[in-house]
Amino acid sequence: MSILGIDLGGTKLATDVFSEQGSILREETIPLEKRSGTEVGGLVVNQIRKLMAEQEGKGDSVQSIGISVPGISNRKSGLVWAPNIPGWEKYPLREEVREVSMGIPLTIDSDRACYIMGERWKGAAQGCRDAIFLAVGTGIGAGILINGEFLRGSNDIAGAIGWMALERPHLGKYSECGCFESSASGEGIAKLAKELLKNAPDYQGVLKNKSSGEITAYAIFQAYDQQDKIAKEVIAHCIERWGMGIANLISLFNPEKIILGGGVFGPAVRFIPLIRTQASKWAQPISMQQVIIEPSRLGSHAGLYGAAWMSMQNSKV
Amino acid sequence: MSILGIDLGGTKLATDVFSEQGSILREETIPLEKRSGTEVGGLVVNQIRKLMAEQEGKGDSVQSIGISVPGISNRKSGLVWAPNIPGWEKYPLREEVREVSMGIPLTIDSDRACYIMGERWKGAAQGCRDAIFLAVGTGIGAGILINGEFLRGSNDIAGAIGWMALERPHLGKYSECGCFESSASGEGIAKLAKELLKNAPDYQGVLKNKSSGEITAYAIFQAYDQQDKIAKEVIAHCIERWGMGIANLISLFNPEKIILGGGVFGPAVRFIPLIRTQASKWAQPISMQQVIIEPSRLGSHAGLYGAAWMSMQNSKV
Repeated sequence: MSILGIDLGGTKLATDVFSEQGSILREETIPLEKRSGTEVGGLVVNQIRKLMAEQEGKGDSVQSIGISVPGISNRKSGLVWAPNIPGWEKYPLREEVREVSMGIPLTIDSDRACYIMGERWKGAAQGCRDAIFLAVGTGIGAGILINGEFLRGSNDIAGAIGWMALERPHLGKYSECGCFESSASGEGIAKLAKELLKNAPDYQGVLKNKSSGEITAYAIFQAYDQQDKIAKEVIAHCIERWGMGIANLISLFNPEKIILGGGVFGPAVRFIPLIRTQASKWAQPISMQQVIIEPSRLGSHAGLYGAAWMSMQNSKV
Repeated sequence: MSILGIDLGGTKLATDVFSEQGSILREETIPLEKRSGTEVGGLVVNQIRKLMAEQEGKGDSVQSIGISVPGISNRKSGLVWAPNIPGWEKYPLREEVREVSMGIPLTIDSDRACYIMGERWKGAAQGCRDAIFLAVGTGIGAGILINGEFLRGSNDIAGAIGWMALERPHLGKYSECGCFESSASGEGIAKLAKELLKNAPDYQGVLKNKSSGEITAYAIFQAYDQQDKIAKEVIAHCIERWGMGIANLISLFNPEKIILGGGVFGPAVRFIPLIRTQASKWAQPISMQQVIIEPSRLGSHAGLYGAAWMSMQNSKV
């Protein structure tokens, strides 16, 4: 028996086939390219059909399917809202998948739920009852585990930490995706670098001749390694905000662990000691002493592990 | 059968005798005056002994006792840490009370736990599964209800929202009690007013001839009613911070309700519409639309109701 874990992101569809013990038997990633709406749904459905047939052919049929989505999965209606996929305002993913999944238990949940539950199954949160996965990628979100349960809130949108207010005054750009996310997400990093470059006409560093599209978080981390002045300023800015945001999680939740993941952690993992120093300035001091801050152990597979694990749990009910 | 609810604060000891249905049969408040250490413990014990005897005499004996403490109650050791009561670093309250409570079920918990559980039993959080009591008094704390359970964190110190980082740069004074609490608690209000007065040599308003001890949060609300310039500045400052702090609770927890209580709400209740407007600028917009923000319905009795309710629940286990 195998488990199908699927992680739909804003730019790619990743699939892992797991054993019940959590070994990855097969993995595949397909870029979304310019797909939108039903093309994305079709890609998911085809991939599931293909992998189910493959596993069937090996005599190891799929026993449950878990899908992580980059947004909100309404567990009552089966509709998905994914702001980064055009046409996915109320997308009927469950209905579409059920047409090929032939009665196999299916779970669709938000990426932040999948990240923390994946880390709890096989990653950095194993054995934890109170732990938080802070995902910093294109956006910022948090998957929060409380007393062993995922925090959903009254309408399944708890953990929207990208909206955390960290500095005043309020700027217009915060209205789009929140203060913390504007300031310290992957996209925030790129935007801040562009702003700084625009205001530094005498700048002669490695970012100088890059086009706007080439100024990405990734390029900033590369420039940082070359001691670039602007990259250093951007990273220092982010370390302060990451420290403040993490401090607020520590003071409010008193967790055992905060796990840093997403595309930015990744390259920003090396800054964890500096982020901890920043957080220490702000957080409730006893909670601060007790908390462990560490990187994701599952990296880009965290959501896949979590989706698979949740589908197994739900299939047992 | 009656229930004894006890609310030990930094300045007074309040006791309510409740019926099982939650009616207050008798209430009494005693100021702590200059008591510290074992004198405070003695006062609690004497009050319990007296009320138990009184109820016994009425043929309505006490079936459980709940005590709210202004700090952390270690539920394993029975020791209490209450920073505003001198000598209560690790105070053996449970041991002392057990000497007079003669085997009656006894529950000791933090004031923030008692506030939200009290509001849930008989106040603004009735019927809620996800609600937060934001207590703004001398300090700032939050009692957080998640899926019907009180949020404790890994070491019983969750909800320390007074430490929330809301504005940079970090100032030295935040190290004592946190950024949010420095900025917008009762004590923060008084301190800010004093700072502003010191920097306004030409000021001729109603606060001018007050001594430092007379510049309290209460005095600032009175001066505000007289259109005082400094009081207006202080209140505007607080409304912005309260809005930011509440916004962060909304984005992280997606609660049904946020209930504002403590000594400051009280007089600041009239500002709730303005606080909501501030919060709306920062919070996750869907959660913001859904949340209800309202004042405590139990006022200074919230902790008493909560302590009594928790002791009843624990006595049923």
